[in-house]
Amino acid sequence: MNARELEVLKERTQAFVQEVVIPAEAHEPSAGVDEAMRRDLQSQARAAGVFAPHAPVSLGGGGLDLYEQSVIFEEAGYSLLGPVALNCAAPDEGNMHLLEIVGTPEQKDRYLRPLAAGDVRSCFAMTEPAPGAGSDPSMLLTTARPKAGGWVLNGRKWLITGAEGAAFAICMARTGKTDDAATMFLVDATNAGFTVTRHVPTPDKSMPGGHAEVVFDNCFVPDDAVLGAPHQGFRYAQVRLVPARLTHCMRWLGIARRSLDIALDQTAGRDAFGSPIQELGLAQALIADSVIDIESSRAVIREACRAIVAGDRGTGASSVAKVSVSEAVFRVIDRATQLCGGAGVTDELPLTRYLIEARAFRIYDGPSEVHRWAIARRAARTRERLRQPASGGAGE
Amino acid sequence: MNARELEVLKERTQAFVQEVVIPAEAHEPSAGVDEAMRRDLQSQARAAGVFAPHAPVSLGGGGLDLYEQSVIFEEAGYSLLGPVALNCAAPDEGNMHLLEIVGTPEQKDRYLRPLAAGDVRSCFAMTEPAPGAGSDPSMLLTTARPKAGGWVLNGRKWLITGAEGAAFAICMARTGKTDDAATMFLVDATNAGFTVTRHVPTPDKSMPGGHAEVVFDNCFVPDDAVLGAPHQGFRYAQVRLVPARLTHCMRWLGIARRSLDIALDQTAGRDAFGSPIQELGLAQALIADSVIDIESSRAVIREACRAIVAGDRGTGASSVAKVSVSEAVFRVIDRATQLCGGAGVTDELPLTRYLIEARAFRIYDGPSEVHRWAIARRAARTRERLRQPASGGAGE
Amino acid sequence: MNARELEVLKERTQAFVQEVVIPAEAHEPSAGVDEAMRRDLQSQARAAGVFAPHAPVSLGGGGLDLYEQSVIFEEAGYSLLGPVALNCAAPDEGNMHLLEIVGTPEQKDRYLRPLAAGDVRSCFAMTEPAPGAGSDPSMLLTTARPKAGGWVLNGRKWLITGAEGAAFAICMARTGKTDDAATMFLVDATNAGFTVTRHVPTPDKSMPGGHAEVVFDNCFVPDDAVLGAPHQGFRYAQVRLVPARLTHCMRWLGIARRSLDIALDQTAGRDAFGSPIQELGLAQALIADSVIDIESSRAVIREACRAIVAGDRGTGASSVAKVSVSEAVFRVIDRATQLCGGAGVTDELPLTRYLIEARAFRIYDGPSEVHRWAIARRAARTRERLRQPASGGAGE
Amino acid sequence: MNARELEVLKERTQAFVQEVVIPAEAHEPSAGVDEAMRRDLQSQARAAGVFAPHAPVSLGGGGLDLYEQSVIFEEAGYSLLGPVALNCAAPDEGNMHLLEIVGTPEQKDRYLRPLAAGDVRSCFAMTEPAPGAGSDPSMLLTTARPKAGGWVLNGRKWLITGAEGAAFAICMARTGKTDDAATMFLVDATNAGFTVTRHVPTPDKSMPGGHAEVVFDNCFVPDDAVLGAPHQGFRYAQVRLVPARLTHCMRWLGIARRSLDIALDQTAGRDAFGSPIQELGLAQALIADSVIDIESSRAVIREACRAIVAGDRGTGASSVAKVSVSEAVFRVIDRATQLCGGAGVTDELPLTRYLIEARAFRIYDGPSEVHRWAIARRAARTRERLRQPASGGAGE
Repeated sequence: MNARELEVLKERTQAFVQEVVIPAEAHEPSAGVDEAMRRDLQSQARAAGVFAPHAPVSLGGGGLDLYEQSVIFEEAGYSLLGPVALNCAAPDEGNMHLLEIVGTPEQKDRYLRPLAAGDVRSCFAMTEPAPGAGSDPSMLLTTARPKAGGWVLNGRKWLITGAEGAAFAICMARTGKTDDAATMFLVDATNAGFTVTRHVPTPDKSMPGGHAEVVFDNCFVPDDAVLGAPHQGFRYAQVRLVPARLTHCMRWLGIARRSLDIALDQTAGRDAFGSPIQELGLAQALIADSVIDIESSRAVIREACRAIVAGDRGTGASSVAKVSVSEAVFRVIDRATQLCGGAGVTDELPLTRYLIEARAFRIYDGPSEVHRWAIARRAARTRERLRQPASGGAGE
Repeated sequence: MNARELEVLKERTQAFVQEVVIPAEAHEPSAGVDEAMRRDLQSQARAAGVFAPHAPVSLGGGGLDLYEQSVIFEEAGYSLLGPVALNCAAPDEGNMHLLEIVGTPEQKDRYLRPLAAGDVRSCFAMTEPAPGAGSDPSMLLTTARPKAGGWVLNGRKWLITGAEGAAFAICMARTGKTDDAATMFLVDATNAGFTVTRHVPTPDKSMPGGHAEVVFDNCFVPDDAVLGAPHQGFRYAQVRLVPARLTHCMRWLGIARRSLDIALDQTAGRDAFGSPIQELGLAQALIADSVIDIESSRAVIREACRAIVAGDRGTGASSVAKVSVSEAVFRVIDRATQLCGGAGVTDELPLTRYLIEARAFRIYDGPSEVHRWAIARRAARTRERLRQPASGGAGE
Repeated sequence: MNARELEVLKERTQAFVQEVVIPAEAHEPSAGVDEAMRRDLQSQARAAGVFAPHAPVSLGGGGLDLYEQSVIFEEAGYSLLGPVALNCAAPDEGNMHLLEIVGTPEQKDRYLRPLAAGDVRSCFAMTEPAPGAGSDPSMLLTTARPKAGGWVLNGRKWLITGAEGAAFAICMARTGKTDDAATMFLVDATNAGFTVTRHVPTPDKSMPGGHAEVVFDNCFVPDDAVLGAPHQGFRYAQVRLVPARLTHCMRWLGIARRSLDIALDQTAGRDAFGSPIQELGLAQALIADSVIDIESSRAVIREACRAIVAGDRGTGASSVAKVSVSEAVFRVIDRATQLCGGAGVTDELPLTRYLIEARAFRIYDGPSEVHRWAIARRAARTRERLRQPASGGAGE
Repeated sequence: MNARELEVLKERTQAFVQEVVIPAEAHEPSAGVDEAMRRDLQSQARAAGVFAPHAPVSLGGGGLDLYEQSVIFEEAGYSLLGPVALNCAAPDEGNMHLLEIVGTPEQKDRYLRPLAAGDVRSCFAMTEPAPGAGSDPSMLLTTARPKAGGWVLNGRKWLITGAEGAAFAICMARTGKTDDAATMFLVDATNAGFTVTRHVPTPDKSMPGGHAEVVFDNCFVPDDAVLGAPHQGFRYAQVRLVPARLTHCMRWLGIARRSLDIALDQTAGRDAFGSPIQELGLAQALIADSVIDIESSRAVIREACRAIVAGDRGTGASSVAKVSVSEAVFRVIDRATQLCGGAGVTDELPLTRYLIEARAFRIYDGPSEVHRWAIARRAARTRERLRQPASGGAGE
C-alpha cells in the first residue's frame, strides 16, 4: 500500500470512528460490549470498507503490514469500541497473526477464516494463577501428555481474556521438562475437557468476554490440534507477542489522543484566575507533556514497526515500546483528568474509565518491570559482545 | 495528651480498624457505605473508645489537636470505612472544625452537637459548575441578598459531597461585589428553597451520600443562619481548608500504607525468574519508593501540624502537603498495583478502587496545579521581601 | 543514498570515531579543542571519507538529507570531538544549512564554501543579555538602520558560540518596529565595527571558541551583506533552528550512548552484595531506563527527520524532539554516573563533564519550558480548528 | 536549648553566613578552600559565637542535639564555605561524633579536642577501589593483623575526603573472616606506614583536602589506636553514618535554598513573552516544585532527627532521608539552572558548580540504589513480622 492509499484508509477509518463508533458508545452495555453490539459494529465496519485491516487479503482483510497497521489501529483505538468494530481487538487480532504465521492450511481454514470474518471470537490461554505462568512464562504448570492419536491437557488458567463466548482457545501447555518445552494447542470451546469456570471480576470492561478462569481437565485433543509444530510453544509465544505488544500500543495510543482531545475541548473557552485555562502555564505544562508523550509513543511504535517490516525480529524494540507507550498512555489520561478538574473525576467524562482500562496494559503482555529486566540484560549482553569482537559469539 | 497517651490511643485505633472495620469491608454496599452501616460502625467506635477523636471534649469527642489527629487519622484511614466509623470523614470533620472555631454558641448547640455525635451528616456547598467557583473560588456565582430578617440565596452547586442525606449545608454565597465578599450560611435540608437535584455519578464510592448537585432557589434563611460574621466567607474557607487539606492527607496516607501492605502480603513467598519476588531489584525499587513516599508524606504532614499547633497559620505548609501527599499516595497505590501483577487489576484486590478513590484527591480542595501556582507566588513574594529589608512591608 | 550506502557510511564513521577521534580525546587541551586540533582531526576525517557529510556535494560534502544525517551525526556525537572532526558541529553546521537555503550564489561562494571546507569557523549572533533577545527572540534589541549603500548595526550579543576565532558572524538585528521585523546580516570578523569583547566563562568546553560577548558598534555593512532578503530574519531563524535543533539532538544522542557504554563497561565483571552489579535489579532499572531513553530519542528524531524530508515544515516535531531528547540525554548521563558509583564523580571518567556539556542543551535553542509553552499552544490551536471544521481557518 | 534560644542561634548563624561567609566566596581559591581560608573563617565564626555548634560543650562547642543541628547546619550550608567556617563540614563533623560516642577518654583528649577546636583536620578511611569496599562495605580488603603490642595495617583506600592535610585518619580494616569482623583504628598522618599516594582529580572542589588515595603499608599502630573496641568496626560505621547522612542532608538543603533564591533573584523584574518571568506558569511550576522539595526535605530530616533524639536508632529514617534529600537537592539546583536560562550555564552564577558538588552526594554515604535496596528489605521484613505476630521473631 503506498503512502497515498494508506492516508485514504486512515481518513476513512477516522470518519468511521467519528460517525459510527463514537455515537455507539452511548449504547454500550454497562458490563461492556456484548455480542449483538459487536456484530452490529463489525457489519457497519465491513460496509464502510474498514473491516479487518490486518487480516490476510485472501480472507477478506486489508492485508496491512505492521507499519500500516500502526497508522490504522491508532485511529481505531480512538474509541474503546473501535478495535472491536474493526475486528482488530486483542486477543483475536494476535491470534489471527499467529494462526497466519504458524497454522497449517487446515487450521487456517477451520480457525483463522471464521475469526478473520468476525463470525467467532477466540482466546489465548497462557496465563496461570500463582505459582504458575504469570510474568515468568517458564513457570508454566499446565501439562499436555501424549496419548494415542493426541494429547491430554490438564491445568488451570486465569485472566484469559475473551474466554467467555470464545469458539476456541489457543492453549499453552508444558510438553517437556526443560524450561522451554511447551506446545500450543487449538482447543474447541465445545471440548468436554474445557470449561470456563469463573468470570474474574475486573474493573476494566472494554474487552468482549472479559477475563475468565478456565480449566483443562483431562482435555483430549487430537494430534492435528497442535498449532504448528510441537515443543515450539515458547518460540511461537514470541511470534505472537512481539507484534501483539505493538498493536496494543497502537490502539492505546488512540485513547491517549482521545483523552487529550477531551481535555482540550473541556477547557476550551473556560477561564480561571482571570485567564483562559488553556493559557495558564501549569495547564500548558500538562498539555505539552501529553503531546510529547503521544508523539514520542507514535515514533517509538513506528520505528519498531519499520524495523520489523524490514526484517528485524523486533524483540528488543517491542519491549521498549511496550514499557514506554503503556506508561506514557497512562500519564496522558491522568493529565487529561487533571486538566478537567472536578468533571474529570465524575462519570460525565470517560477519563476515569480510560485510566482503569489502560492501567491493566502496564501489566499484561509483561509488566513494565519484567520488560525493563529483559531490556537491561539485553543491553549488557550486546555491549559485552562489542567489547570482545574476537570471541566469535553467536548473534542473538 | 502526652506521647504515651497518644501511643495508647493509636494502638486502640489500630486494633479497632483491624478487628472491626476491616472485617466490615466485606459487607459494604456496592454503592458505598449506607446510613445503617455508618451508624453501626460509629456505635462500635464509641464502644471501643475511639469515636470522634477530633471533636471537642465537651461534645463527647477526644479533643485532639491537629498534630495528634495526624497520628490517629492515619490509622483510621487504613480502611476506607475507618474515617466514617470514627466520624472523622470529610466533609463532616471539616465542618465540625469550622463550626467550633466560628460558630455562635447557639449554632454549636444546634449544628455541631448532633454532628459531633454522629446523629446527623452535613455538607459543604461551595463548588459550582463552570463558569462558577471551581478551582478559583473567586468565581462564585451563588448569591445571597438581604431581605427583612434574613437573606435569600440563589444558585447552583455541584460535586457537593454528602449532600444526599445531610441534615444541613454550609453554603457559600456572594454578598458583595468585590472578589472576597462572600458569606457562609447554615441551611437546613428541610428548607423549602434547598433541593438536592441530582446525584452526580462518579467512579469513587467511599464518601457517604456521594456527590450531588444542589440548588438554592429563593432560599430564605434568617439572620442567625449566617455562620459567624457576614462577608467573612473567603476567610472562613481558609479556616476550614487549611486543616481540612491536612486531615485529608492523614486519612489517605492510611490507604497508601494499606496498599503497600497488600502488595507485600501478595508477593510474600512468591517466586518469579528463580527468586523471591520481594528480592527482585525492580520490585524492590517499587517497594522502596513507596516507603520513601509514605515516610516523606508523614513527615510533611506532621511538620505542618506542629507548626500550626505552635501558632503558625499554615497556609503555605498545607498547600505543600496537599500537593505532595496527594501525588505520593496515588503513586504508592499505583506501584502496589504493579507489584501485584494480574491480581492487582482484578476486583480480588481493592487496589484499583483505591486508585480511583484517591485520584479525586489530587483535584478536590484545590488541584495540584492551583496549589503549585499559589506556592510559587508565595515563594516569589517572600524572596522579594527578603531582598528589600528596608521596605517595611507588612507580613503576609 | 540507499539504505546499504548509508549503512556503509555509518560503519565508516563509527570506525573513524573509534580509531581516530576517541584516541585524540586524551590530547584535548584543558580549555577545549583548539585550532590545531580541529584542523588535524578534520584532515583525518577528509582522508577517511567521512568529512562534512551534510554539506552540499558541490562543495565537497556528502549531501546527506536530514534523515541520513540523523544516522551519521549520532555516530559522530559518540565523542565530543567527533562533530568538530566531521565539521558538523554547532554553530557551523547550522550556518551552512542556512547559507545553503537562503544565501545568494555570491554569499555561498564567499561564506559557505570555506566554511564547508573547514577553512574557517563562523558564529550565529542572535542571543542578547537581558533584557534583550533570550528565550523570547522578539525582545531583540540590536538594530540595523539603513544608510547609503548598506546598514549600520548596533547592539550587544552574548553567549555567541564560536565567536572567538570565527571568520564571520551571522547577525540578527531589528530592522522594523513590529515584533517580527528583523534581518540577518553577514558580518566579517575583520569589520571594524565588530568586536569580541569578552570570553564568557562557562563550565562547558566542547565548542571551539567557547561562548563570547560581541559588540556591534556602528558596524557598517554593505547591502549585499543582507543574508537572503531583508526583514526575513525571524523566518530564517526558523529555517535554521528547526533542523539545527534536530542535529543537536542527533549529536547529543551519541554522548548518551557513550555514557551508557561507559557504565556498562565500568560495571562489567564487578560484584556487589554477592551478585554481578549488572544483575542487581536496581542497576538494571538504571540501564533499562537509559536504553528506553536512547531508543525513544532516536525514534523521535528519525520520525521528525522523515517528516521533514517528506516535505513537512517540522516546527512542532522539532520542538517535541528538542525537549524530549535534551532531557533524555541528561537523564542517561546522570544514570551512567550513578551506575559507576564513586568513579563516576571523579575525573577518571568523563561522565561529569558530559553532564555539564549536555546541561546547556536543555537551555540553548529554546529552554524546555519555552518549547513546552509553544507545544501546548499549538495543540490547543490545532484542536480548536478540528472542532470548527467549517471555520475555514488557514493552516498554521 | 529551648525553641527561643535555638531561634536566636539560627539568626546569628544566618547573619554570619550573610555577612562573613558569602562575601568570602569571592576569594575562594580555584582548587577549593585552603588552610589559610579555613583558619580565617573559623576564627571569625568563633568570634561570632557560631563555631562548632555540634561539638561537646566541654570542648568549646555548642552541644546541640541532632534536631538542633538540623536547624543550624541548614543555615551553615547556605554557602559551600559555611560548614568549613563552623567546623561542621564532612568528614570532621562525623568523626567528632564518632569519637565522642566510642572514643576512650585518652582518644578524646588526643584526637577529638584538637579536631573540635579546628586545630587539625581528619579523614575517614573506609572506601576502597574495586573490588574492595565501595557501596558494599562487606567487601573490605584492607587488613589489620595483630602483632605484639598492636596491629599491622595493609591496604589501599581511595576517595578519602580530606586525607591531604589531615592530622589523622580513622581507618577501617578487616580483623576477622566473617563479613562483619572489622575494626577501626586511629592512625596519625605522621605514621611511616601511612601515605597519601595520590590526589584523585574530581570535579567537585568544596571539601578541604579533596579526595585522595591513601596506602597503609605495613602500618604499625599500638593497641590504644583501636577506636573503641576491636571487631566493632561495622557497628561503629553505623554509629557514624546514621547521623552523618542526616548532617549531609542538612548542609545540602542549605545549598538547595540558596539555588532557589538565586533563581528568584535572577528572574525578579525580568520579562519574557510579555509577562514577568516569575508569573509564567512554566516557571512557576519549577519554583513550586522546588519549594515542595525543600520543605519536604526539611520535614523528612527533622522527623528523623526528632525520632533519633527520642531514642530511635534511626537507621531506616536516615536511609529514607539520604535518598530523598540527595535527589531533591539535585533537582532543586537543576531547576534553578533552568530558571536562569543562559546565565545559569555560565560561571557567572554558581549553579553548575552546585550541581556538580551535590551530584556526588547521591553516591557517597551509600548510593541511592543501595539505600533503596536496604529500605525495601527492611519493609519486607517488618511486614513479615506483623503478619506473624506469634512467631516471636527477634527485632531487627
